[in-house]
Amino acid sequence: MVITLLSDFGDLYPASIKGVILCINPDANIVDISHSVPAQDIGQGAFMLMATAKFFPSGTVHIAVVDPGVGTQRRAIAILTESEKYGVHYFIGPDNGLLIPAAGSIGGLEVFELTNDALFRDASGVSATFHGRDIFAPAGAYISKGFEIEKAGKKINDYMTLDFGSCVKNDGIIEGRIIFIDSFGNIITNIPSGMVDYKYGSMLEIWGEYVTFQSSYGLSEEGKPLALIGSHGYLEISVNLGSAVSFFNKKQGDGLVIKTVCMY
Amino acid sequence: MVITLLSDFGDLYPASIKGVILCINPDANIVDISHSVPAQDIGQGAFMLMATAKFFPSGTVHIAVVDPGVGTQRRAIAILTESEKYGVHYFIGPDNGLLIPAAGSIGGLEVFELTNDALFRDASGVSATFHGRDIFAPAGAYISKGFEIEKAGKKINDYMTLDFGSCVKNDGIIEGRIIFIDSFGNIITNIPSGMVDYKYGSMLEIWGEYVTFQSSYGLSEEGKPLALIGSHGYLEISVNLGSAVSFFNKKQGDGLVIKTVCMY
Amino acid sequence: MVITLLSDFGDLYPASIKGVILCINPDANIVDISHSVPAQDIGQGAFMLMATAKFFPSGTVHIAVVDPGVGTQRRAIAILTESEKYGVHYFIGPDNGLLIPAAGSIGGLEVFELTNDALFRDASGVSATFHGRDIFAPAGAYISKGFEIEKAGKKINDYMTLDFGSCVKNDGIIEGRIIFIDSFGNIITNIPSGMVDYKYGSMLEIWGEYVTFQSSYGLSEEGKPLALIGSHGYLEISVNLGSAVSFFNKKQGDGLVIKTVCMY
Repeated sequence: MVITLLSDFGDLYPASIKGVILCINPDANIVDISHSVPAQDIGQGAFMLMATAKFFPSGTVHIAVVDPGVGTQRRAIAILTESEKYGVHYFIGPDNGLLIPAAGSIGGLEVFELTNDALFRDASGVSATFHGRDIFAPAGAYISKGFEIEKAGKKINDYMTLDFGSCVKNDGIIEGRIIFIDSFGNIITNIPSGMVDYKYGSMLEIWGEYVTFQSSYGLSEEGKPLALIGSHGYLEISVNLGSAVSFFNKKQGDGLVIKTVCMY
Repeated sequence: MVITLLSDFGDLYPASIKGVILCINPDANIVDISHSVPAQDIGQGAFMLMATAKFFPSGTVHIAVVDPGVGTQRRAIAILTESEKYGVHYFIGPDNGLLIPAAGSIGGLEVFELTNDALFRDASGVSATFHGRDIFAPAGAYISKGFEIEKAGKKINDYMTLDFGSCVKNDGIIEGRIIFIDSFGNIITNIPSGMVDYKYGSMLEIWGEYVTFQSSYGLSEEGKPLALIGSHGYLEISVNLGSAVSFFNKKQGDGLVIKTVCMY
Repeated sequence: MVITLLSDFGDLYPASIKGVILCINPDANIVDISHSVPAQDIGQGAFMLMATAKFFPSGTVHIAVVDPGVGTQRRAIAILTESEKYGVHYFIGPDNGLLIPAAGSIGGLEVFELTNDALFRDASGVSATFHGRDIFAPAGAYISKGFEIEKAGKKINDYMTLDFGSCVKNDGIIEGRIIFIDSFGNIITNIPSGMVDYKYGSMLEIWGEYVTFQSSYGLSEEGKPLALIGSHGYLEISVNLGSAVSFFNKKQGDGLVIKTVCMY
């Protein structure tokens, strides 16, 4: 069974988590989604998990830990979600919104408070600072071995949610915001592909610059900005063979307004 | 079966690729070669793939994606190569030269244009920007499960090639260039071990500095430059317990001339 | 069988190691602990290995390479260690102290000089610069397949050791030093939890600042320093939602003195 890991742990800490998982389920196939979520940035972690979780096989357990509230009163949760298209996926992590967009991208949510200490590494020795290793990893490992998630704890409905902000379209002008900047410097907005009906070659105005709408990066001139529907399914702003985030000097969370200059 | 991955994707995108592979071949043993190729640097990616691919077992499928031309007219290719020493290796990626030095380091090349959409993730929904996920990953996964590469598409001979530049030796002076700088700051040149016949202890002149030829790093004084035959099989310039790239202030692609000062 | 890898290799080199392992033992489950040990920093590598090795299953082979002396007279070693709590663990690497704290954290040590070239990749072609690939990886792979470690070479007792410095407690004042700084900027000291008997809420003075002793990060005010027993089992200095290393401007190896200002 596949277990994915996502965290802001950077180096070193993920290894302990993998060791704990393999002690419980030696057959687990552990795949790192990322451990480079910016420290304590729940929103970025939630986007990264949402962007990747649905590509994994049915039955996958996703353990995600971006957890500034570790050791405080925040709850631990385990989620079951299912759809015909994506099958069954499990999500394990803190109750701070991190898991919700990803789980919701797959199907409806059944959320359980993770309180059954039979799922913890060593109930008597759970650290106050590393629930990734002591609670989330063992719980995920047991669930990947067939432990029934319904026995993790009581079902709850008052879990914390998180969204990526709204975007609006009026008279052909779209307003949205930046939800992610990838390692190429591509700017991913919260504007879904369904809201975009530009034909390829159309000229847009974004942040005072003319930007062509294209189907892919290489169709624009080198160094020139373009807009496209990225692989995440959102409107993305890019610079061919360059970095859009450097070109526009923007950051995650910034707003944007898209005007149509010329429509083909 | 082992599937290796090499790309300039940095973080996040490799996870989708792994998910897609595991949906098709749950038994795939996925190994990252690197996802830190400098963005769109086909030459660096080609070197990194060549430096590592041959160490993997016979039967390995290597998926490599450094692909500034994604979504344009560049072709996708699948390569079969074989030799007694290294066995059978498959390479999947863009037709831009990236795969050629690595495939050639193993044996002769049979190159197929990758057009059979039975090998694509969802023929109706291939994105224009992420062929790593939608074409190369599923094609590699199917081939790792036994799909015959000959059915991937028609055999071609006009694929793009790539080399690391030539080096020449005249009157004991060798001219070459830098093809890679590793994470220790070691400078790897394109001068193959076969062209080098210095005895250990010989003194060379490189970029105006005296450099001793040694068998390993720790045999030079701390902070002093040395030259050696590195583990890649090329002449390498290094600084014991330091960084040669900082010492010499050079970069990938720069030329070098090696004169013999004193031969032991 | 699980094989873990720890090194200062950064990118690229770990892939060759994995290929070599999989050629010898295709069933090896390879887990990266870290390849980001600061270049040639044996002490940091030793801490990182000690902090993680014991979480892996009994039978795990740990290959660790931070090896400024590669190609010189330094020996290669293989260690067997065992305890009821952690089971059997193997450690393979250079004889420079790197392996000792981790192996000692599990049980008593049996240390063998690694000289049996049946365990080497290709006895005739061992490089002078990359024993990770040519000696440690194949030795670890063979041991993970059941090769008896006693046949690796003669048992030795004069292996190099390494410790993290001593700390002392006098009149309630504790003196120690920084042994690790994690990716959040948390400062991990060499002061073991057993030496600390502050109650939660106690006020300490460290580096001229008032620091509250807490059970977890989120219990302190944002941006304020706190001390806690971290997940490694040592006293750790942290800043809630911030970086302690930036706040205090300290580095690995620096000393610290802890005075009690107010004891609850």
